[in-house]
Amino acid sequence: MRLRAGVVVTGTEVLTGRVADRNGPWLAEQLRAVGVDIGRLVVVGDRPDDLAAALRHLLPDHDLVLTSGGLGPTADDLTAQVVADVQGRPMRLDPALEGRIAAVVEALTRRHGWHGDPDAMAAGVRKQARVPDGAHVLEPVGTAPGLVVPPAPGRSGASVVVLPGPPSELRAMWPAVLAAPAVRDLLAGAEPLAEDTLRLWGALEADLAATLRRIEPGVADLEISTCLRDGELEIVTRYAPSAAPQLAVLRDAVRADFGPTLVSPDGAGVDDVVGAALVARGWSVATGESCTGGLLGARLTARPGSSAYVLGTVVAYADAVKTALLGVPAALLREHGAVSPPVAAALAEGARSRFGADVGIGVTGIAGPGGGTSDKPVGTVHLAVVSPTGTRARALRLPGGRDQVRHRTVVTALHELRLLLADAHVPARS
Amino acid sequence: MRLRAGVVVTGTEVLTGRVADRNGPWLAEQLRAVGVDIGRLVVVGDRPDDLAAALRHLLPDHDLVLTSGGLGPTADDLTAQVVADVQGRPMRLDPALEGRIAAVVEALTRRHGWHGDPDAMAAGVRKQARVPDGAHVLEPVGTAPGLVVPPAPGRSGASVVVLPGPPSELRAMWPAVLAAPAVRDLLAGAEPLAEDTLRLWGALEADLAATLRRIEPGVADLEISTCLRDGELEIVTRYAPSAAPQLAVLRDAVRADFGPTLVSPDGAGVDDVVGAALVARGWSVATGESCTGGLLGARLTARPGSSAYVLGTVVAYADAVKTALLGVPAALLREHGAVSPPVAAALAEGARSRFGADVGIGVTGIAGPGGGTSDKPVGTVHLAVVSPTGTRARALRLPGGRDQVRHRTVVTALHELRLLLADAHVPARS
Repeated sequence: MRLRAGVVVTGTEVLTGRVADRNGPWLAEQLRAVGVDIGRLVVVGDRPDDLAAALRHLLPDHDLVLTSGGLGPTADDLTAQVVADVQGRPMRLDPALEGRIAAVVEALTRRHGWHGDPDAMAAGVRKQARVPDGAHVLEPVGTAPGLVVPPAPGRSGASVVVLPGPPSELRAMWPAVLAAPAVRDLLAGAEPLAEDTLRLWGALEADLAATLRRIEPGVADLEISTCLRDGELEIVTRYAPSAAPQLAVLRDAVRADFGPTLVSPDGAGVDDVVGAALVARGWSVATGESCTGGLLGARLTARPGSSAYVLGTVVAYADAVKTALLGVPAALLREHGAVSPPVAAALAEGARSRFGADVGIGVTGIAGPGGGTSDKPVGTVHLAVVSPTGTRARALRLPGGRDQVRHRTVVTALHELRLLLADAHVPARS
Repeated sequence: MRLRAGVVVTGTEVLTGRVADRNGPWLAEQLRAVGVDIGRLVVVGDRPDDLAAALRHLLPDHDLVLTSGGLGPTADDLTAQVVADVQGRPMRLDPALEGRIAAVVEALTRRHGWHGDPDAMAAGVRKQARVPDGAHVLEPVGTAPGLVVPPAPGRSGASVVVLPGPPSELRAMWPAVLAAPAVRDLLAGAEPLAEDTLRLWGALEADLAATLRRIEPGVADLEISTCLRDGELEIVTRYAPSAAPQLAVLRDAVRADFGPTLVSPDGAGVDDVVGAALVARGWSVATGESCTGGLLGARLTARPGSSAYVLGTVVAYADAVKTALLGVPAALLREHGAVSPPVAAALAEGARSRFGADVGIGVTGIAGPGGGTSDKPVGTVHLAVVSPTGTRARALRLPGGRDQVRHRTVVTALHELRLLLADAHVPARS
């Protein structure tokens, strides 16, 4: 049996959907890496009864339960108290911890020049220094300490790991979680699962399902999940090291049936494939964007080290700007309209020449909600990529709203760039 | 007592964090609008035992439980069966439903030119037409019917609403959920809550907490939650119509204590405030970006109708490009370095003059992970906004990684633009 962890995320803003939870996915990934599956994840608001119910729900059939949030200095941050109650331990003040938190708060106050009420601050510090008796304290990264809380002596059951809500604090505390005795002992018997990802661009989910059915008996020990995202079909496989030969069966079958649609042989995503190919060729890239408004440039420069190959972007929303800044001939705009294949090509050429880049990408389209016509409805997008060794062009009719059209355009442009770079039979720089 | 609903989201890809759940937040918003709070939300993978445990966990203290996902044609889509078991109802084939699903599948097959195995298709249709005996069927939007499943006769407890996983199918089915007898009867007694949002920029969470404590007795019927996000402090209040006078107390107190930091009087976000102010003045805007790589332009153009006031962006990563495309003097770059207040101002002026815009925004900084020095560490950012009526400049030292630095820079730039527009005592266009 594999180890299973339950997760409780606290926060009304997450429960009501105003804020996306960033801790659950991160914890799932960290736990997988040390051989622990996530069983169930529960989101609760700020009511202590709901938190207690969630803990009591998860503790019986999980080997570890983790919580995030509810550790602030105010009275409505109740996670430590509720966990203590559920695990049957009284709360006590940890005076040494109180001193350490006070020092952190004092340093923060000085640094930011805050002028708070000293009594209120001292009360907040004391609240954060109250911990379940017998809990293992994880040193604060911000002002809130984390906790590992085993059941009270004489009780059996899983420990609860209590972590702060701010993702940066939670992440910085993770090494201390793994080093805590109760967690270390539990993980000693875990077998980490490896994870393998294959990404396809332009393959049908139904065809992939047929391939998986065909090879099923030979890959029974793999946990395979497939997922269509932004037009990319992801095949994520989790497997014990002993099942590596089955993974080879899967990879061979996917390569045989879907080779031309594989984004990379090693699971790398399109951003990394494109970045590495540009670096290998010593090529630079620039973009001329209309409907994406800079989103393609932002995506290209999101990758660390991208300054080695991204020269820049011109976003030209108005036609006059397309002509003035990217040299798109006014006659071309008049004749074909701004959203047309020749204008996409001219935007790409314009970006290439204005920035002196090797590769230019042009994007023009109608993201909506306004601006569509019967001839060119919302979602009509034209892309062009130009390079020293060839060009690619693409006409799209994308579904969805403004955000979705813009986002899907960026992903498609990256894949067009990837395919152009894959076709460019230029020797890598020596 | 207000009505409470529990939600179960199924899917290993959500549980492992590879895909963000879009149904839970949407359901929370719909339920709030009809007067139902979300109590707890549980995410489970594809194991039927976990789904059953989640349902048994939520049913006792919720008035309604909703599930999303697990209704597909394959044998591992088990939600209907598990819900039937938990509610104590046997499964039965609904022959009329089978005929309707078969017609949908046939139409889809024809339209897309699929060539599937007819026996496998028929088996899938029959699987999807098997429903808990006595359940109310919600007509399929895709191929999967939804269900409203009350407890078996003689049992008490909440009904379970079973919805498909694809967000478009789930959303299209929502009116039928509200019209289903069991749901309609439940909602007859519900009082819808209204929601109010106040946003502060540059206020301290601790100071806001002090204000809330001071007025607490007078706002006891409001559900107030505060949340710090991207440097903005959000105050979200949910309230019954009868508590509107208490909301006025809250708003007056926040205005009195935090007036200068209020982003808007009506809860509008910075994007809308900036857009409306630019339109009111008839001003256009252009950006000259370095470290944000186009992210500011993308954010400005994310708003529908932004083409009325956004002229464009130049992303100038390399120094030579800053000079060639935005006219940043080479001497300035040499003397102060690319990441400096004078270069931020020159980028803003350059964008303004090259695009012929009324307002120019310049951004330069070190997003990391490389490129930092002891003098200018990663997170050092300089912003400038120039306009016909004045300028604003800001020097930042932002924490976090590359994404966080870039994102926080964009939010800060939007607020600098907002503050400049608020200060610009120019009469609105008549």
